[in-house]
Amino acid sequence: MENRYSYQQLFAFTQSAFLAIGCSAEHALLATEVLLSADLRGIDSHGIARLVGYVRLWEAGRIKANPDIRIVHETPSTAVVDGGGGLGLVVAPFAMRVAIEKARLAGTGWVSVRNTNHFGIAGYHAMMALQEDMIGMAMTNASALVAPTFSVERMLGTNPIAVAIPANKEPAFVADFATTTAANGKLELLQRKNAEAPLGWVQDEDGNPSTDANILKKKGALLPLGSDRDHGSHKGYALGSIVDIFSAVLSGASYGPWAPPFPAYVPMPENMPGEGLGHFFGAMRVDAFRPADEFKAQMDHWIGRFRAAKPSAGHDRVLIPGDPEREAAEQRLQEGIPLFESVEEELKALAAKLGVKPLDKQ
Amino acid sequence: MENRYSYQQLFAFTQSAFLAIGCSAEHALLATEVLLSADLRGIDSHGIARLVGYVRLWEAGRIKANPDIRIVHETPSTAVVDGGGGLGLVVAPFAMRVAIEKARLAGTGWVSVRNTNHFGIAGYHAMMALQEDMIGMAMTNASALVAPTFSVERMLGTNPIAVAIPANKEPAFVADFATTTAANGKLELLQRKNAEAPLGWVQDEDGNPSTDANILKKKGALLPLGSDRDHGSHKGYALGSIVDIFSAVLSGASYGPWAPPFPAYVPMPENMPGEGLGHFFGAMRVDAFRPADEFKAQMDHWIGRFRAAKPSAGHDRVLIPGDPEREAAEQRLQEGIPLFESVEEELKALAAKLGVKPLDKQ
Repeated sequence: MENRYSYQQLFAFTQSAFLAIGCSAEHALLATEVLLSADLRGIDSHGIARLVGYVRLWEAGRIKANPDIRIVHETPSTAVVDGGGGLGLVVAPFAMRVAIEKARLAGTGWVSVRNTNHFGIAGYHAMMALQEDMIGMAMTNASALVAPTFSVERMLGTNPIAVAIPANKEPAFVADFATTTAANGKLELLQRKNAEAPLGWVQDEDGNPSTDANILKKKGALLPLGSDRDHGSHKGYALGSIVDIFSAVLSGASYGPWAPPFPAYVPMPENMPGEGLGHFFGAMRVDAFRPADEFKAQMDHWIGRFRAAKPSAGHDRVLIPGDPEREAAEQRLQEGIPLFESVEEELKALAAKLGVKPLDKQ
Repeated sequence: MENRYSYQQLFAFTQSAFLAIGCSAEHALLATEVLLSADLRGIDSHGIARLVGYVRLWEAGRIKANPDIRIVHETPSTAVVDGGGGLGLVVAPFAMRVAIEKARLAGTGWVSVRNTNHFGIAGYHAMMALQEDMIGMAMTNASALVAPTFSVERMLGTNPIAVAIPANKEPAFVADFATTTAANGKLELLQRKNAEAPLGWVQDEDGNPSTDANILKKKGALLPLGSDRDHGSHKGYALGSIVDIFSAVLSGASYGPWAPPFPAYVPMPENMPGEGLGHFFGAMRVDAFRPADEFKAQMDHWIGRFRAAKPSAGHDRVLIPGDPEREAAEQRLQEGIPLFESVEEELKALAAKLGVKPLDKQ
């Protein structure tokens, strides 16, 4: 039922949409590359399916197409960046670049960002460090959908963490995950299929276990990684909290239940304690610890050993973080990227609204 | 059935044991403080119950009582420390102190450590940063007990992460957790009680779910945080891997299945790729991002809001990471620290062997 599009087709369309809302040529190109890295890597929830949402935020005046992005505070290894209310898709690479430049001189660089918005997949930004022989880290807070352990109130976003570590002959180690049991995008996929969620992903408004994939529309909540107290949900809650604090309290963005919502129709929270969403980035020069060649050779050894770990019944191999996404990207560059019909419809309407050339079919 | 001992009683005994194996007065004092911080904070598995294990490692020549601990590489914001084969209990505070000193000048400090050993609870080291108005981080790799997702082979330790964040009037936020569904200490507790483990903590040697608390003695494995693929175990596996790489590959320690075992009777792995265990520490000066007063006031606000989140049925409050451990410490300082009879017996035998005064009963 799904049509496939080439990366180039999606690129041309997305770029024209960002240009149409007034982004500079440079920003439109960058925002497109960042957004579509999600589609390429198989994380469909965070890619072009969200383009309409970004445009709605711009229409609502919640995102600026021409932001004044600037460093507002710095030390040799740190900075705070004010994103000027811009697309996180362009603010985040700016801030990650600052982290990388800091790392060049000081060994590591750490940048907290306020007054920004959704930044696509965390993995893109963390991976920017790889070509510099650096370890990259990226995280962001997000609209509150997650209830802490022992609570029924939505207090945290799915607050992802990405860590990218270079190797030599092996592909890089790239972890990129929501700090919840399941990312919201996986729940959306079940909604589209009218399927139930496994127990442990969500709870209802009273905190009872639920398998209803639509429970978030009924005051339910996502559960932190670990699902329940017996299975370590307090650890997922702590991880999501750390992401929130590093991204938003260190920078002066809005945190916890005050994080600005992604859907433009949801009213902004009252009494927001900061500006916009927050991100946090890190870059560590590998040779600030040991010679890069040595490190990367040992990473090859590490990866090779874990790849060779004995698989359990029903599995033919043990994966290294980043394997599924890299393999999806290789496949999708060749075979095209599938879009749900509902997404195609939305993009058709978007083209008409913005007066840009509609998306070509492959 | 359990006798209680005052902190002072445990302190005097532990200090005398470290002195007896040849630690300097300064190291014996520090090692005692670090080790007993676990007993105080209610993490019984990592405190005085392990003293006999440390002494056995020293007897086996796997720990040096008078290590040459030194910085072997550094940049403005990083260092690599060689622990000289010493007690992690003294190597870790040395390295964390280096991270703090780096942060003073460069904004942040990041230290990877090789040729070290078990360091007690990660939280102690992370919390060293708090009095400096810094955020502290600590992690360590450990003997392999954990199977990656889709594997039956033990490849990672329980590899804990601790993050300590200062507040003003509120107590600090202190997260300290193993990157597994349940720490090994919790499993040991069930073994002592002859109880079963919840499903999702461990698997048997074929990778089947198991409730056998003794399964690690039967070639089973602990499961990463998330328990299984459907519930995010690939995220726990990634977290444990990141801890392993930051602690051991960045520093040149032994990683993955080669991490040295804690029990002295277990043979050392062959073809070890590095020296000893590895740790990783971080310190970030809060005012490298924004004025410390502002940050700490917002942390009070963050903590207050999360504490006020609506509890679910059967719970009267939502906890902030660090609450249970801080409350345990307050209680145990007043009421004493309970020891299992088996631990008392081991400590009695240890006193005889080392020729030190046995532990007094309260």
